Amino acid sequence: MAARRLKLGMVGGGQGAFIGAVHRIAARLDDRFELVAGALSSDPARAQAGAVEAGIARSYADWREMARAEGARDDGIDAVAIVTPNHLHAPVATAFLEAGIHVICDKPLAMSLAQGEALAKLAREKRLLFALTHTYAGYPMVRHARELVEQGAIGELRVVQVEYAQDWLAEPVEASGTNKQADWRTDPAQAGPAGCLGDIGTHAYHLAAFVTGVTPVALAAEVHTFVPGRRVDDHVQAMLRYADGARGMLWASQVASGAENALRLRVYGTKGGLAFDQEEPNVLWFTPLGGAAERLTRGRVTGAAAAHATRVPAGHPEGYLEAFAQLYLDAALQIDAIEAGLPLPPASRLLTTVDDGVAGHRFIEAVLASSAANGKWTAVG
Amino acid sequence: MAARRLKLGMVGGGQGAFIGAVHRIAARLDDRFELVAGALSSDPARAQAGAVEAGIARSYADWREMARAEGARDDGIDAVAIVTPNHLHAPVATAFLEAGIHVICDKPLAMSLAQGEALAKLAREKRLLFALTHTYAGYPMVRHARELVEQGAIGELRVVQVEYAQDWLAEPVEASGTNKQADWRTDPAQAGPAGCLGDIGTHAYHLAAFVTGVTPVALAAEVHTFVPGRRVDDHVQAMLRYADGARGMLWASQVASGAENALRLRVYGTKGGLAFDQEEPNVLWFTPLGGAAERLTRGRVTGAAAAHATRVPAGHPEGYLEAFAQLYLDAALQIDAIEAGLPLPPASRLLTTVDDGVAGHRFIEAVLASSAANGKWTAVG
Amino acid sequence: MAARRLKLGMVGGGQGAFIGAVHRIAARLDDRFELVAGALSSDPARAQAGAVEAGIARSYADWREMARAEGARDDGIDAVAIVTPNHLHAPVATAFLEAGIHVICDKPLAMSLAQGEALAKLAREKRLLFALTHTYAGYPMVRHARELVEQGAIGELRVVQVEYAQDWLAEPVEASGTNKQADWRTDPAQAGPAGCLGDIGTHAYHLAAFVTGVTPVALAAEVHTFVPGRRVDDHVQAMLRYADGARGMLWASQVASGAENALRLRVYGTKGGLAFDQEEPNVLWFTPLGGAAERLTRGRVTGAAAAHATRVPAGHPEGYLEAFAQLYLDAALQIDAIEAGLPLPPASRLLTTVDDGVAGHRFIEAVLASSAANGKWTAVG
Amino acid sequence: MAARRLKLGMVGGGQGAFIGAVHRIAARLDDRFELVAGALSSDPARAQAGAVEAGIARSYADWREMARAEGARDDGIDAVAIVTPNHLHAPVATAFLEAGIHVICDKPLAMSLAQGEALAKLAREKRLLFALTHTYAGYPMVRHARELVEQGAIGELRVVQVEYAQDWLAEPVEASGTNKQADWRTDPAQAGPAGCLGDIGTHAYHLAAFVTGVTPVALAAEVHTFVPGRRVDDHVQAMLRYADGARGMLWASQVASGAENALRLRVYGTKGGLAFDQEEPNVLWFTPLGGAAERLTRGRVTGAAAAHATRVPAGHPEGYLEAFAQLYLDAALQIDAIEAGLPLPPASRLLTTVDDGVAGHRFIEAVLASSAANGKWTAVG
Repeated sequence: MAARRLKLGMVGGGQGAFIGAVHRIAARLDDRFELVAGALSSDPARAQAGAVEAGIARSYADWREMARAEGARDDGIDAVAIVTPNHLHAPVATAFLEAGIHVICDKPLAMSLAQGEALAKLAREKRLLFALTHTYAGYPMVRHARELVEQGAIGELRVVQVEYAQDWLAEPVEASGTNKQADWRTDPAQAGPAGCLGDIGTHAYHLAAFVTGVTPVALAAEVHTFVPGRRVDDHVQAMLRYADGARGMLWASQVASGAENALRLRVYGTKGGLAFDQEEPNVLWFTPLGGAAERLTRGRVTGAAAAHATRVPAGHPEGYLEAFAQLYLDAALQIDAIEAGLPLPPASRLLTTVDDGVAGHRFIEAVLASSAANGKWTAVG
Repeated sequence: MAARRLKLGMVGGGQGAFIGAVHRIAARLDDRFELVAGALSSDPARAQAGAVEAGIARSYADWREMARAEGARDDGIDAVAIVTPNHLHAPVATAFLEAGIHVICDKPLAMSLAQGEALAKLAREKRLLFALTHTYAGYPMVRHARELVEQGAIGELRVVQVEYAQDWLAEPVEASGTNKQADWRTDPAQAGPAGCLGDIGTHAYHLAAFVTGVTPVALAAEVHTFVPGRRVDDHVQAMLRYADGARGMLWASQVASGAENALRLRVYGTKGGLAFDQEEPNVLWFTPLGGAAERLTRGRVTGAAAAHATRVPAGHPEGYLEAFAQLYLDAALQIDAIEAGLPLPPASRLLTTVDDGVAGHRFIEAVLASSAANGKWTAVG
Repeated sequence: MAARRLKLGMVGGGQGAFIGAVHRIAARLDDRFELVAGALSSDPARAQAGAVEAGIARSYADWREMARAEGARDDGIDAVAIVTPNHLHAPVATAFLEAGIHVICDKPLAMSLAQGEALAKLAREKRLLFALTHTYAGYPMVRHARELVEQGAIGELRVVQVEYAQDWLAEPVEASGTNKQADWRTDPAQAGPAGCLGDIGTHAYHLAAFVTGVTPVALAAEVHTFVPGRRVDDHVQAMLRYADGARGMLWASQVASGAENALRLRVYGTKGGLAFDQEEPNVLWFTPLGGAAERLTRGRVTGAAAAHATRVPAGHPEGYLEAFAQLYLDAALQIDAIEAGLPLPPASRLLTTVDDGVAGHRFIEAVLASSAANGKWTAVG
Repeated sequence: MAARRLKLGMVGGGQGAFIGAVHRIAARLDDRFELVAGALSSDPARAQAGAVEAGIARSYADWREMARAEGARDDGIDAVAIVTPNHLHAPVATAFLEAGIHVICDKPLAMSLAQGEALAKLAREKRLLFALTHTYAGYPMVRHARELVEQGAIGELRVVQVEYAQDWLAEPVEASGTNKQADWRTDPAQAGPAGCLGDIGTHAYHLAAFVTGVTPVALAAEVHTFVPGRRVDDHVQAMLRYADGARGMLWASQVASGAENALRLRVYGTKGGLAFDQEEPNVLWFTPLGGAAERLTRGRVTGAAAAHATRVPAGHPEGYLEAFAQLYLDAALQIDAIEAGLPLPPASRLLTTVDDGVAGHRFIEAVLASSAANGKWTAVG
């Protein structure tokens, strides 16, 4: 039987926004969601225009009202996608959780660790799904990497090298007033205390944790702002220590001239190494110690995790939107189970959630503390 | 204002089919189509089961009945996607065109050039859209390559090297009876007289023609069957001559061990060269004569053609499904215009149509004729 | 004990020549040759100047005189390197063979198949070494590819794709009168009847034969001249048939804008495929049917053939000069054996010889015949 | 006129050594040196056997005696290549400098900064060449990168990312007693206090300094030993600060399973970025901010620095041995000039010298100090 289409609402993501459109495509791609309600902008006229453009039936001028109204309707939304600037994640998510509505939220989770932990607590109490869109964990080959690590393919972890480089903030584009993305992402009131660190540093940190299954116990870090006048960091570098003796480095930059969206992970263990490049996401490199590098590809590897996240055969590239859609698909599987009072389906187990967001805030706080203490080794979480 | 969602029907593409699911995702991705009717299988029970699984409201046991019924309904489908084995393309398309319904059809267009030409004629007479899903022409960087050629970036064309290698038929998988794809694609009654030639050779031929803007005037070719017992060719090689003196080679194989879906085009002109690899579709290589190779990327190039086919920024890979969706998006733009009695929107001009299918059949017939004449140079079309 | 340094002479390769300097480096690299005599130019003053520059003790104004004099000296040269334009290969080689001197000669071997066969016959009669510098067969990973094929790693051969693209003749550079390389290579009197075909087409043909161990039984080909006024071909394309049913394509071009020295080979068999790119010579790709592509590297693979041709560890790239030096090293090993009346050392067995040159002429003649007959399938040799 | 061949001696590099053979090939490649004397081993019999194998005329049982004797001969060596384990660099170099003989020495320079500074002082006083073989600075594309930076191509430097990963010490290979390389490189008495740090960390540090023209003012670092029982570090990670605000990271590891000799540098400035990978040394990537990545290649770029270090045309790969030979060629040019009382030739200006070795020791000492202080930011030099 066909799986039922879940009813989805959206807060934020009006005209000109980047990530709202991405969420809408991702929600639609596997046909498990129907977007029926939205509060796309704090400006009522823009909210309405955006809703019309996106074909959304019920447009609200205010997300609080939307939470109340949708929570009260018999045919109200099952889940809400929160795609606002960061400072609204917590209040919006709280309102919808209170209204009994599942949440799918952009990262970083909140404005602080405390705020994030409160969200996690609330979601648990309400027994609602709180998915966090760490998109890159939706890639089949990232999931396969995790599975290989779980299966012992690299042996004991020794070294983690993770980086996320972009160049779109290499110049003071926020000064122009015409780059909506740059505007809020460099405004501490909307983005939070972490700029590049929160925006992409958390992705890098999460990717490493997702694949290796472990997070560092301590780090020594430095945030930096290269572009004069910028109000948040645009560069972060950190060294990592893990409980079992592994070591690592993390680098994130939004001023790396020439870099598009260069999220790359390499992990090395006693038996082998893995490498993944987000810009070539259908490939995962595995090199057993002493052997030849193997170019593993989506659609050819036989692991269950990759198979679950694969739609078309090897050689037919899937990309960023499919990875994003995977989170929506897994969210749908989990919502179905929650609603039916069933255990979460094993296939959906790799969905990233509010707990990943909390871990991200632990990372952010440790980095900021270490950086403020001139790079002193600082415990994480 | 939001563009209206068009009503889509589908013929073929039932459970276990590969390309039907791809069409459904592609149709949905940009939110311009709603799948409301289908005749997914010639077996009524399977048709019904497939329709339920795909969430299709109106399921028909027979495509003839579907064409009649949908053509007669006020709220009947605007367009039909034909995703059957090749031998049904022409009769199904004819029935829907006769019913006044736009057609989006898989390639190869038909079973013969004559059949293809008849379809083209009928579509013109009916003033209906007949889109043919030469998917790879939906890639932004393929469209950019075409635009660069149009703008003279490579100068006068001299050399075309195009190839499409796969390995999924390297062994007699059709003998197992469990590989539905292999079964019909190696059955001349369903696939037509051309196996690998029709299935992927036509894609290679089309890609070269799409980018260069020209088709060869003559070719010398050889089809070959490597796998014992196979009833169609699984390998084709051809040399090409163009009207202006350019030369080329085309190779397609389904027995190239290790190749996944390796469609690659290189063109060389008096001023520069271009290279595209379908397995890395966000990149186009351009090398001006005497200069450094430039790695052009989707989202960074500024051409209108690529921009029209781009959804997410550079470094966020788009893939096969997005390319496929682009054909649906362009089809929607053209259907809107046709229905409104307006000229076709320039942005949609690169949609591949029945005429590309006719050109493909000219190629198929020339290859088969040349091969039958021991590789004699043979005029194309 | 140290191997004795052999005494080497050189004919051709004076100032401004490209390949003469390459031979000198290659001869020196593994310390098995000492260059002591030369007739570097037909112009006595230039010959003398070149000899001084190259540090050559005995400079001759004429290669005939050199052959006579060196053959008569007790301390005369052991071997001569012939690096003249093609038309002199046969007369020079004949003179030195007659003088009892081993020959290391550039390719193509001669001006015609008959001339080449005569050289092969003479070398056999004289029991002298006649090495032909098909440089690319000196690469460790090319030798490893051959060894893998011999060991059955790809199963039965099905498909050969070989190509050699350059762009240095994309414009009529020979018209300037200042490009010595272009001048003689486009002059039929010096280069022979085959331009691009003889210069690089033979390399491509040889590489395919070297790795697969087989040569085609027939081909259908077309040579073409793109640059107006050019007196030899600058482009060749061919389809190949092998005795056991394998198929192939060969392409060589010197007008492929953007191509530097793009010699690439792919072979596909029933069990796997191999790919080699001369511009990345430390790597060989092997993909078993159904498995992941393996990136085999020089210094990590364990085969004897690659090990014999490897000087520095994996990750320390060796290149073109080392491949060239390998031919000199193997030539030294064989000269030692011949002089000692011993069998040729197995490690040196992959040295390319006059017989490879004869095979190259069979290829050239078949291509020219087929092309003259409008691409008719023509037997090779 | 031909340049005169300089007479070279060698200390260390006997049978079984890796780097001695490399030096011999490098010295020979461009024909500016003739190896005539050596003290290849501290074991007289092995020294003699090695000399015979290498074709060295004058073999010494002791390097002190060799320095004295060669310094006293009219036809004594012009220069000595020191290829011993690290602990002998300083005493051997001192002896030869005192004897008036130019020095070409392996890195790291010495066992301590003080020892290194003393060597630099002595070389200056004696007005003798002291070349240090930071091999990777011999690559044409590394030199081109430096030239681009000098010319302002990347604008103001912002970010340096440099790394050098190997895996040959991933297991306790020194425990076997059969791996001569591993034995001395993991023995503090022979290698010095820095293991991986001194062996390859200094290469990474130098490469970054060579290309950017600047060294960091401070660093925060951690050395680590992964393999139980190992007596030196096998892993180092560091964060870097530059005087002008630039930031950087350096990573070196000899336990990175799957890495062969992965020395990679990326630098980002306000106007563009550069990337170099030692395993693909004929290529340099340059991306201007906002533009397409350009694949610059040896033989095609027009800069003087690359041209000076290039022997064969684009597409004919040069590698590690050629880079090494470049140091010898530049050393010969400088020795000629010193001997003639002329200024050093501008073309040779990029030769790495004792001063690079001193800078390397400043780096080593800063890293060890920072690591001992739990990663405290520590001034460099």
